[in-house]
Amino acid sequence: MTDPLRIVALSGGVGGARFLRGLVAWGATAGVPLDVTVIANTGDDMRLHGLQICPDLDTVMYTLGGVISEAQGWGREDERFTVAEELRPYGVGWEWFTLGDRDIATHLARTSLLDAGQPLSAATARLAARWDLPVTLLPMSDQPVETHVELSGGEVMHFEEWWVRTRAAAPARRFVQVRVDEAAPAPGVLDAIAGADLVLLPPSNPVVSVGTILGVPGIADALRSAAAPLVGVSPIIGGAAVRGMAEACLATLGVPATAAGVALDYRSRHGLLDGWLVDDADAGALDELASAGVAGLARPLWMTDVDTTAAIAAAAVELGLSLR
Amino acid sequence: MTDPLRIVALSGGVGGARFLRGLVAWGATAGVPLDVTVIANTGDDMRLHGLQICPDLDTVMYTLGGVISEAQGWGREDERFTVAEELRPYGVGWEWFTLGDRDIATHLARTSLLDAGQPLSAATARLAARWDLPVTLLPMSDQPVETHVELSGGEVMHFEEWWVRTRAAAPARRFVQVRVDEAAPAPGVLDAIAGADLVLLPPSNPVVSVGTILGVPGIADALRSAAAPLVGVSPIIGGAAVRGMAEACLATLGVPATAAGVALDYRSRHGLLDGWLVDDADAGALDELASAGVAGLARPLWMTDVDTTAAIAAAAVELGLSLR
Repeated sequence: MTDPLRIVALSGGVGGARFLRGLVAWGATAGVPLDVTVIANTGDDMRLHGLQICPDLDTVMYTLGGVISEAQGWGREDERFTVAEELRPYGVGWEWFTLGDRDIATHLARTSLLDAGQPLSAATARLAARWDLPVTLLPMSDQPVETHVELSGGEVMHFEEWWVRTRAAAPARRFVQVRVDEAAPAPGVLDAIAGADLVLLPPSNPVVSVGTILGVPGIADALRSAAAPLVGVSPIIGGAAVRGMAEACLATLGVPATAAGVALDYRSRHGLLDGWLVDDADAGALDELASAGVAGLARPLWMTDVDTTAAIAAAAVELGLSLR
Repeated sequence: MTDPLRIVALSGGVGGARFLRGLVAWGATAGVPLDVTVIANTGDDMRLHGLQICPDLDTVMYTLGGVISEAQGWGREDERFTVAEELRPYGVGWEWFTLGDRDIATHLARTSLLDAGQPLSAATARLAARWDLPVTLLPMSDQPVETHVELSGGEVMHFEEWWVRTRAAAPARRFVQVRVDEAAPAPGVLDAIAGADLVLLPPSNPVVSVGTILGVPGIADALRSAAAPLVGVSPIIGGAAVRGMAEACLATLGVPATAAGVALDYRSRHGLLDGWLVDDADAGALDELASAGVAGLARPLWMTDVDTTAAIAAAAVELGLSLR
């Protein structure tokens, strides 16, 4: 029996989750046993109406559990909204943030476990057990970290409010990962990195998803000293973020919203990145990547369905293994 | 225009709420303008899955708001259970305590307001505003008080667990109102008592509902020094609690579960009670009440519908006004 290929992935929400589903599908189809550990961003987490909500953990969990809303990319399929309809007339809370009934059950269960004194990593494992996930799902940290947005006018709001309510339209001056300096990697995070054959960066938001994970003291160090090569998939295709509003985030850092721009920023800011998958449309960036010491590979990167996503994951793994 | 009759009622859940509905109906039918302030027990309150749940406040609010489940006497009519069905497979929390979807919205709204720093009294007013209640609904206190049950074996549990999960079957040794000594009457409570024309005790549980309210420092004193007569409606009919399991509660205090027993305990333990309404079946207790200085009146006390309940409320008011 072959030892499974030990992969660590640093994931945000929708893009990361879809990539991971492709990765798992590729492993199954190709007959390659995988041992995947997902380190998920928890900087978007929030307490809303007393509930602890972890958008990225839930999106990964629902996607890999087969119960994601395909239309939205987040939240539960066949969702219902009795609670939200009843909540509205009370006129309290974040009225722009609609919680589905099925989703609320997840938040209630998580909050229950946390209130009983369990760390987020243990609560996440308990929730994930219900869905029999094909990966080990870890929060980046058990300590709360909250990404806040400072607008150009000085106003500060939770990232989710900026992202969901304003659709990232309000110009952001900077992002602040509140309390990230006091956070430690969750149990299992450093061990998984140290023992990995390959570390992958799915096409998640490089600033507020992957960037937040890398901001947890100890994680970037562990990645730099790990034996495994680190290969990323560009979240930018032809100068546009595949999904979401990554450009608005990159602008705050002065990073060009291009496939090469994001890769070179991982190099210069974090001293990370051995390989970088770009879309065929961005094949022109391969030379610039090569001269920066990043092994590039151009492939179709639109994750239109599970099969095409599996092919992207296969290419990322192939590139990574060639760099060992 | 007549000044409204200022009534204060100390209420628990189902029995109190139904009595109050009868009182309001009587006022409307009889053309007597009422200014009713309800001081509700909050000793049954709990944090469950991160949500602040106030069973008695909600039962009064839903009943007087016209959205109570008539079949249950608590919770919302036309209730749905998507959240509860989704919560169960996670296997966390109080699995014996089923929260309905519509009800959860109330708890989310309340928790939101509390988490934003509002006291329970302000949160209660905000929630009640939605339902346009014909009374002023006040929690007994803004400070959290939790009624715990010490079983004869020494085990301690939250009152709601004992009441709902064990159906009060586990023999109780005593009730402890945790932190009641640190509680203060909520804003408006003492003013309402001081300004009342009449104070009513609906047929609520004398130990864990009314008894808990009277345990908040300052409330019993205010009632003793108030000008208004205090008239109660017996929660015991013919030796059986009308609803619920009051006998099991009375036993812990050594109080006989009889109409007279409860009345005499209000007198001896709290120095309260001017009038007491008993059921026709308990008319034999009137002499004993009279010799203890309590003005008794026998009437049919089964609250079978709003009309019969209105007649009970009318009798209580009539008795009270005769004692001014």
